[in-house]
Order: sequence, then C-alpha cells, then structure tokens
Amino acid sequence: MSHVRERFRRVLARSTCTLAANIFDPLSAHIAHLLEYEVCVLSGSVGKVATLAAPDVVLSNMSDVVEHCRRITRIADVSLMVDAEDGFGNAVNVIRTVKELEAAGVAAIEIEDNVVPRQFGVAHPGLVSTAEQVGKLRAAVAARTDPTTVIVARTSALAECPLEEVLERIRAYAATGAEALMLVGMTRGRADLEAVQQATSLPLCVLNPPADVRNDAPFLAAHGVRLLMLGNPTFAVAVKAIYDSLKHLKEGGALEALHDRQASRDLLQAVNRTDEFMQQQREYMPHTPS
Amino acid sequence: MSHVRERFRRVLARSTCTLAANIFDPLSAHIAHLLEYEVCVLSGSVGKVATLAAPDVVLSNMSDVVEHCRRITRIADVSLMVDAEDGFGNAVNVIRTVKELEAAGVAAIEIEDNVVPRQFGVAHPGLVSTAEQVGKLRAAVAARTDPTTVIVARTSALAECPLEEVLERIRAYAATGAEALMLVGMTRGRADLEAVQQATSLPLCVLNPPADVRNDAPFLAAHGVRLLMLGNPTFAVAVKAIYDSLKHLKEGGALEALHDRQASRDLLQAVNRTDEFMQQQREYMPHTPS
Amino acid sequence: MSHVRERFRRVLARSTCTLAANIFDPLSAHIAHLLEYEVCVLSGSVGKVATLAAPDVVLSNMSDVVEHCRRITRIADVSLMVDAEDGFGNAVNVIRTVKELEAAGVAAIEIEDNVVPRQFGVAHPGLVSTAEQVGKLRAAVAARTDPTTVIVARTSALAECPLEEVLERIRAYAATGAEALMLVGMTRGRADLEAVQQATSLPLCVLNPPADVRNDAPFLAAHGVRLLMLGNPTFAVAVKAIYDSLKHLKEGGALEALHDRQASRDLLQAVNRTDEFMQQQREYMPHTPS
Amino acid sequence: MSHVRERFRRVLARSTCTLAANIFDPLSAHIAHLLEYEVCVLSGSVGKVATLAAPDVVLSNMSDVVEHCRRITRIADVSLMVDAEDGFGNAVNVIRTVKELEAAGVAAIEIEDNVVPRQFGVAHPGLVSTAEQVGKLRAAVAARTDPTTVIVARTSALAECPLEEVLERIRAYAATGAEALMLVGMTRGRADLEAVQQATSLPLCVLNPPADVRNDAPFLAAHGVRLLMLGNPTFAVAVKAIYDSLKHLKEGGALEALHDRQASRDLLQAVNRTDEFMQQQREYMPHTPS
Repeated sequence: MSHVRERFRRVLARSTCTLAANIFDPLSAHIAHLLEYEVCVLSGSVGKVATLAAPDVVLSNMSDVVEHCRRITRIADVSLMVDAEDGFGNAVNVIRTVKELEAAGVAAIEIEDNVVPRQFGVAHPGLVSTAEQVGKLRAAVAARTDPTTVIVARTSALAECPLEEVLERIRAYAATGAEALMLVGMTRGRADLEAVQQATSLPLCVLNPPADVRNDAPFLAAHGVRLLMLGNPTFAVAVKAIYDSLKHLKEGGALEALHDRQASRDLLQAVNRTDEFMQQQREYMPHTPS
Repeated sequence: MSHVRERFRRVLARSTCTLAANIFDPLSAHIAHLLEYEVCVLSGSVGKVATLAAPDVVLSNMSDVVEHCRRITRIADVSLMVDAEDGFGNAVNVIRTVKELEAAGVAAIEIEDNVVPRQFGVAHPGLVSTAEQVGKLRAAVAARTDPTTVIVARTSALAECPLEEVLERIRAYAATGAEALMLVGMTRGRADLEAVQQATSLPLCVLNPPADVRNDAPFLAAHGVRLLMLGNPTFAVAVKAIYDSLKHLKEGGALEALHDRQASRDLLQAVNRTDEFMQQQREYMPHTPS
Repeated sequence: MSHVRERFRRVLARSTCTLAANIFDPLSAHIAHLLEYEVCVLSGSVGKVATLAAPDVVLSNMSDVVEHCRRITRIADVSLMVDAEDGFGNAVNVIRTVKELEAAGVAAIEIEDNVVPRQFGVAHPGLVSTAEQVGKLRAAVAARTDPTTVIVARTSALAECPLEEVLERIRAYAATGAEALMLVGMTRGRADLEAVQQATSLPLCVLNPPADVRNDAPFLAAHGVRLLMLGNPTFAVAVKAIYDSLKHLKEGGALEALHDRQASRDLLQAVNRTDEFMQQQREYMPHTPS
Repeated sequence: MSHVRERFRRVLARSTCTLAANIFDPLSAHIAHLLEYEVCVLSGSVGKVATLAAPDVVLSNMSDVVEHCRRITRIADVSLMVDAEDGFGNAVNVIRTVKELEAAGVAAIEIEDNVVPRQFGVAHPGLVSTAEQVGKLRAAVAARTDPTTVIVARTSALAECPLEEVLERIRAYAATGAEALMLVGMTRGRADLEAVQQATSLPLCVLNPPADVRNDAPFLAAHGVRLLMLGNPTFAVAVKAIYDSLKHLKEGGALEALHDRQASRDLLQAVNRTDEFMQQQREYMPHTPS
C-alpha cells in the first residue's frame, strides 16, 4: 500500500501547491486517478450524502467512513486523505479509527478539533481543549502501523479563536508528531497564512480559501500551502447530471437527446478497465480467444 | 419492507407500460426516488463498474451485489429490481442469493438463463438447459421468505434460439412460479413480443428494444410489456459530468466556470434530506435550537 | 422476517417466564436455535469481545452491532433481542439505529438510559434526563418500519436512583410506546420487582437477578417477568474450551486426548445443516447423485 | 502489516516443523495469539460453518472469506494462512482474490487444484489441468502488492493421481513463484513425503497426515515439512462446549454448575484486552481516573 503514502508525502514535500481532487465515492476516485490527480480528498459532508443521504450532522460513524474508504481504495489506486472528523470519540477511539483507516489503505487522516455537538444546527460548538486535542493527535500518531501514514491536524481555530490562541494551538499540535496542518474557516485571508507560517513549518492544507488567495499560486506556495481543496464541486455537478437525465426521461424526453451528455465508449472502457482485464486473461488463461 | 414490493406489483398489474429508472448506486437511486420513479433497476454491468471498476465479466460475486443493494435500500425508499445474473451458481446457490437479496430489501430478482462462461469475451456462450433453469427458478420461488418478492425469469433465448425453442422455454419458466418475464436481446422487434405473448400471460419487462418499439407505448402496453428499461444512460451521463469537471479543474480551469453545472442548494438539500433530519430533531430532542 | 418477531411477542404475552439464550456470535445463535430456545439475546459486553476483543467500553459503534446482528440472523432463525446501548447518540441517531437493526432482522431492540461516559472506568456515570430518554424511546418507536418490532426500554435506574424516581422514570418510559421494560442492576431483589409492578403492566426482562429470585420461577411469573437473562456463561465456557484445547496442542498434547471434548459427527452435521443442503440439491438440481 | 508476513516466512525458513493453530473466527484467532502460536490457519470447512452454517460445498464466495479474514486480522495480530479454495474462479478472479485477501491482512494464501464441482457430494471431481493451475498460480504471484505475501500451491494430487503425475504437477507449480506447497490427502504416508521431496525444495505444509507421521517430528523436519495442520479439533471442542452449556441451562440446570467450565476472570480480561485499553486511556486522555 505504501506507494500511495509515498506519493502523498512527495506532494507535501514539494515547494509548490498541488490541487487535490475532491471525490465522493469509488467511481469519482477512479476517474480522478485516470486524470492523474496525485491526491484525492474524501470530505465528511459529501461522504455522508453519497452513502447515507444525510446532511453533515453527527450521523455517520467510524465504520461508515472506513467502509467507504475501503471501497474507494479497492478500485482506485489513489493517495486518499480522509476527513476522520473528531476521530469518532475520545483518544482511545482515535486509536481504533487510525488502525482501521490504515487497514483500509488511506494515505492521510485528518483529525479535527471541533467539539461534536449533541444537537444539530449548533452554529459554533467551539473547540475541545488543547490538552484533549493534543492527546488525540499523539494517540493517532502512535496508533499507526505504517509510519508513512500521515496524521493531519485539522483545525477550525482560525474561525473560532483569537489569533494568539490559534497560534498556541498550532504550536501544540505541531509538537505531537502530526505531519501536516489543515486549515478550515480562514476568515482573514492572506493574513491567516502569514500568521500561521510564523508558528509552524508543517506543510499546510487549506480548504476553500477566499478566491483571491485561492488563485494566487505563488502566494500559496510561498506560505507553505502544499494542498489546496476547492470544496465539492464535482459532487454537485454529478448530482445535477443524474437528476437532469432521470428527469428528462421521466418526463418522456427522448433517449437520443442524452447522447451528447454521455461518456464516450472509450471513456467508459477506460473507467471499467477493459484493457487491463483482457490483458490479464491473455496472460494467465490458456486458450483465451484472441 | 413490503410497501416497496407492493408498489412493484402494482406496476406489473397495471395495463400500461412503466419506465424504470436505471440506477447504479445509492445516490442515483435516491435521486430517482425524489423524482418519483416507481421502479429502479440495478443492472449487472453498471453495478460492476460503480463498485469494482470492472467490465461486465464474471468478476463480481453474490456478496458484491447484495452489499450494493443493501446500501441502496438503506437510503432510498425504492422498489428495486436487481440483476442477479445466473443466481451465482447452481440452484442451491440461488437459494442463498434470493434469501440474501430479500434481506437486503429488494423488490424483484432477475435470474437469467445464460451460461456463465469460464472465459471473458465469449460472444455466445449459449443457454443452460431448460431443466436446469427450471430447477433454479423453482428454487428461487421457494426460497423467498416474503411471498411478495417477485422472481423474474430473465431470458436471452430470443437472441440465442429458434423461436420455437424460445416459446418452449418461456412456457417452462412461466410454470415455475416466476411472476414476470424479462426479455433481453430482442432481435425481431415487434414480432418477438407478438410471439411471446402467445406463450405466456406473465407481465413482461423489456431491455433496450429497438427504437420504433420503444417509443410505441400503446403497442408495448397491448403486448403485455409492463416495465421498460433503456440501458444505462444515466450512468454514462454521470461519468461524463464527473470526468469533465475534474479535468477542467486539473487543467487550471476556474471554479466559477462550473457554477451552472452544479446542483442548486435546494436540490442538494433535498438530496441530503435536511428537512427530514431537522424535523426529527425538533420532534424528539428536547431544547432543540429553533 | 416477521415470524421471528411474532415468536418474540408470544414469549412476552405468555404468563410464564422464559429463559433467553445469551449468545455472542452466529454460531452460538445457530446452536441455540437447534436447541429450540425461543429468544436469543446479544449483549453489548460479549458482542464487543467477540468482534473487537475489547472491554465493555465505548469503543463499538452502531455499524459494528448492526453487522453482527445481520451475520447472526443470516444463518440462525432466531428471535434476537439486541443491546443497542444508548441508541448510539441522540434521538436522531436512535432513528438510524432502529432502522438499520430492523433491516438486520432483529426482533427486539434495547435502548438504555445510562449516560455514556467520555472516559472508561467511570463507575456511576448516571442517567440521562427523563425528558431526553423519553424522546429517544419515542423516536425509536416511531422509526420502526415493521410495527411488530419491539422497542425495549432498558433502565439502570434501580441501581442509580431512589425508588421514587425509578418509578417515575418507568411510568414515563411506559408511555412512549416501548413494549417491554428491561431491568438491570436489581439491588433490592424481590422488593424491586414488587415496586416496579406497581408502576407498569409492561412485560419485564431481567438481567442477572439475585440467585434466590432467579430460581423462583413462580415469583418471577407472578411479578410480570417474561424474559430471564443469566449473563454470559456460554461465552465464558466457549473461551475456556478454545483456550484449553489450543494450549493442550501447543504444549505437545496428543490430538487423541481431545476426542471426547469434541462435538460428535451428528452434532457437527446438524450445525452445518448438511441435510438441508442435500435436500435442496435433490429438490432443485436435475441429475443429483443419490 | 508486514511483520505478520515476516513471521510467517520465518516459520517456513526454519529447519523444524511448526504446529499451526486451526482457528475459525476472530475470537479463536485472538486466543491463539495469546498462546503465542506463530501461524493461524483458516480452513474453508470451518470458515463456512462459522459464518454460513453450511457444509463444505460451493456455497461461500470470495467476499465471505475476505470479510472473515478482515475481521480476524482486525483484532488478532496473527500470521494468517487462508484457504482460498480454487481462487474463486479463473485466473482473472484469482487476481482479485489475492488483492482483496492481501488488503485484508493475510500472510499466506492457499490456491488449490481441485475442480470445483457443479454439484455437491461429488466424491472425486478431479483436478484442473496443469496448464490452468499454473496460470492461476502465476496470476496469484503477480497479483501481490506486497512481495512478502506467500502464495501456497495446494494440491490434492496425492489423492487423485499416479505418483508420476503428482511429481510433474509439483514441479510445474514450484516454477510459478509459489513459495510453499501444501499437501492434502496423503495416502501413502511417509512414502508421499519422500517422493515429494525429490521433486521440490519448497517448504511443505501438510494437513492431517497419518498419526505415525504426524507424531514423528524429526521425520517431518527432515522431509521439508515446515507447517503441520491437525484438522479442526478446536472448532469441534467449541461447538460441544457451547451446545452442552446452552442445553444444560435450557433443561433447567443450575447456573452454578457451569462455574468450573467458564474462563477465569483473568483469562476473560486477557481476551478483552482490558490492560491495553486502560493503558491507552492513561497515556492519551488528560484527567483519567486512576
């Protein structure tokens, strides 16, 4: 499995910023691989919709995410970073989470510092204490069977705390053995990245930065950002495509009218790996029809 | 579970032909449900691509299909007809297949009469003997725990046999307790349906009939066709949408340019059932923030 | 599936007390069925050891339990009552839990009123508020797809509260639509049952009552106890048998010396259902060797 | 994962014969690990009973076995050798089988040369052609992601062929890259091992040899046998223990009478890893109660 982890580490080690593919299921991950994305990210929000048709509330559990990752890595040779929420419980739960996600073949695991609220719709549930989060990150680092798995300290502190506390948290997280820092909720734009860089030399992953930051590749690279995530546009595009085509047919629309919106035969055969299977058959089965 | 089986039976019992949604995963099934399709069909070919990235060869097994169905019925309240291939083995295997698919909540199970070839790329592997297929269909019928589950005798005989033998097979299949007949490989168009109707009064399901037949709803209805399947255009549309959007971003395209191709916020909230979960919270959790 | 739920309800409706089989995996459930136990109970503690080798701490999640139940009901035609802990979260999580356990074929679902502690080894974490527990039980009752599934209100109140509060809680739980009450931590022996009976006419399930109460069948029956659970002796017996036989062989002991401790050929064939499969083959496969 | 594969290879590389633990589920594997068995073997026959309550007929599929292995390796840090039957289909299926079993963490995979009969109860279905089996073994070797995974060529040739053909098959299998040879159906006792050793220097695994051979450790070691399997006594012991204790209670026997047959508290706490979890909590959770 480790070539996927080595590829992930190469992305972090590089001095430029790489765009991640935001995928949501095995098929989209496999397509991202065909397009030679080096990193795929499975976010909690679209993971929950694709498997549970549920909003981003506390409904999914560790096993939902593990199973989803396992189904993805089974068919897509991708370096997968997965949103493991708060680790699904306390530090002891984090240990199980890391072991199971690792066995499912992921390359990197995000553990976040948000309080998981007992109720949905709580706007700012706040952050767990630094001490608790540090314990969870240390547990995650120690739980790895493969030392090349990357533990990513994900923090919402930029949206929840004064900058001083943000930087204290980041320094504490960086001392746990976590090897990347993920920033969500950047509210100050460039200033956030400039400040964070004072506190840590860890490679940064940023989710949905403001458009002016997002499009400034040199700035991102110069401020330690190694992985850029753009939310989940691919999921929203897929939903619309499925909805529109099913609606068209339901309303009596002609099948032919969908022709141009469908993948070509070549693309479909790339997606189902026809060549690879036929090659296997020729190689290993006597008397294969040619 | 039985309301989904009752709905499936209502479609078969009606004197008109109903269009099925060809779905390929939980998400597409859930969207079909939002669009009020009465029947969803999971075909083997797209099932294999979505879960295994494999062509329609003998690579998937019973448990792959059962798991896929379970994940679909868990979130989508659909009447699901599933392609159970040859039942995944002999008549004893068929019994396990039916019991597990039933437990996974499907409404109808197709068992086909093709020989499953030992090698891929075999163009016409032929049909199993009528005696063997009859045994398998009888086993399937007897294996049901819920008598409202529908066993569908799927036959490729129209593409493989002289019409005389086709009709003999259909009569034999109809005597097993199977409650619908599925026709694939219609090569004679209208003549096929006219002949089949001489041999059986079972409701018919037809896959990919020629365009002139497909579009003649009164003819289909008059000749016993109760369920029409149009291949897998939705899958091909989804693949293209995912591929194109990931390619656009990979090549440096602007995120904004995807805006019009994405599902609206309303559609996304319908898909993730926001209202349903918020209503559950208000109903059952004291002190829910309003 | 509903014959297993009807059998469970017959046990509750009877005027006598029935002994449940405490099972821990598919094999032990199947053996209990061969012995004609009417009810099998899967407790959280042995479930966790059998699947996760973990103590009875908050390590397992909903999907662990659902998968375990599904594997049990797949092979054992038992009326299964399952310990669903606190429902695995808030009332909205309870809804998912009930739907998934129902789809897994269980007959009855226990929802308990303990606080789930953030840390292990907390001796008396206390009980959730009555209002919260009532919401969860109401959600569980409403979430059922099959109205014959039984929701069991499990309470540790006897071990945690003054008797007055115990009875108030029981009255509140009984008004939710839960159809049985499960008592754990009976500390006052007969007095507990006498008091509870004042508060509710729901059928009672009791776990590990004191020996003098446990062995007094007329008393149990007269005080509404319909289901008696004796902890998990079968699990402990199985662990010792496995351990001792593996140790014997590891230390060079003779295979022959294990002979008398092994199941007979007849019992093994009952357990693997040889007759049933051979009968299926004769019935549905032409030309079966006799 | 690779420490389990290295341990398996150490056993093969040693000049003595090691006894394998025949385990049947996660619990028995975990107990074998506590007893410091170096290798655990999951045979097809008991695997099918434990998960499917089915005889050793062609009812289980690849996913059944993969899931069983995954559940075992999740909790038991064992070097697992698994009976992968005929690889579950042709050479292309073998590729999927090896990839999924490897992802499930097994150390060694047996691929056998029996024809899988279409019907049950076929006494001597014979062997597949040498060319086909060689193709399957070559495919298995090439399919590995981790080169330390061991492919074991399992053969029933000793029970099915003249010795000359046996040796030809063994030579052909040994040339595929398979790294161990497993012999079942030894009918000639010592003579079989003496002959096989002429044909190959691969380490041998033998199942159920005659008692006089089984107990002659120096002979086994001198003839290349590195792994000895004694059938499934532990499974049969567990079945009897479960059956007897459930029967005792069902017939009104006293709970106390089972006392001496139950695992001690210490053994139960070793099985549920109490110390390990408590240690994790102390290490990673602030303010853990001491």
